[in-house]
Amino acid sequence: MRYSFSYVGVQVRDLDRSVDFYCSLLGMRLRSREKVPETGGEWAELVSPGSPQVLELNWYPEGSEHFPDRYRLGNELDHLAFDCDDADAAFRELVAQGVKPALPPFTEGGSRLAFVEDPDGIWIELAAQASPNPQP
Amino acid sequence: MRYSFSYVGVQVRDLDRSVDFYCSLLGMRLRSREKVPETGGEWAELVSPGSPQVLELNWYPEGSEHFPDRYRLGNELDHLAFDCDDADAAFRELVAQGVKPALPPFTEGGSRLAFVEDPDGIWIELAAQASPNPQP
Repeated sequence: MRYSFSYVGVQVRDLDRSVDFYCSLLGMRLRSREKVPETGGEWAELVSPGSPQVLELNWYPEGSEHFPDRYRLGNELDHLAFDCDDADAAFRELVAQGVKPALPPFTEGGSRLAFVEDPDGIWIELAAQASPNPQP
Repeated sequence: MRYSFSYVGVQVRDLDRSVDFYCSLLGMRLRSREKVPETGGEWAELVSPGSPQVLELNWYPEGSEHFPDRYRLGNELDHLAFDCDDADAAFRELVAQGVKPALPPFTEGGSRLAFVEDPDGIWIELAAQASPNPQP
């Protein structure tokens, strides 16, 4: 499987406050911002003028099924994202090679996602386009 | 001050192990790797073929003056890096605007660095070229 590192997602307590911090003080630009019905949360993608690096800010409501706990030390690093052609196959392939699974494949909007852990427990997102014939 | 978001640095417990994980399993390429005399640590920069996103892995020895504690929950997200023209001025400017300082400006190799905190306490590196007439 070919993988392409696409962005780092950090977790924030207040999305408006953080977007304002990175845009007003550090000159970043809001590239997109979207609510996520599946988590009840919302994310924002930020870039600096002239730089291809992408920063994703993630916010989840308290009591969300996906992230039930309060924000605590360690939540700041949400995940590293890798694009691939087939998230289900990538998940199987990596787990078969001994990588620790975090979340089995699921469909979220137009994306098929799965999560594994790196050697330090950092969550790795495996992202592909959702199939036109949705998988469970 | 103009800032440009340049990479995300995560902290790892074992640099060889993590470089191997990201290169062998996820197809990344080691772009550079360097020991840091000032911290006793070492970092590695990784990229995916065809992607401009940079991932920096940081390792610090136990008992390092900069990072005296053991690796613990929350250490995974090391810092977000922003390039700028003058790290000293950027640090002063941001602190004057109410941003919480983390580490005042210092010189490390050819770089002048300073750290502030974002609203969630995430460390922001302000990086510039060190002046040819070194500052204290």
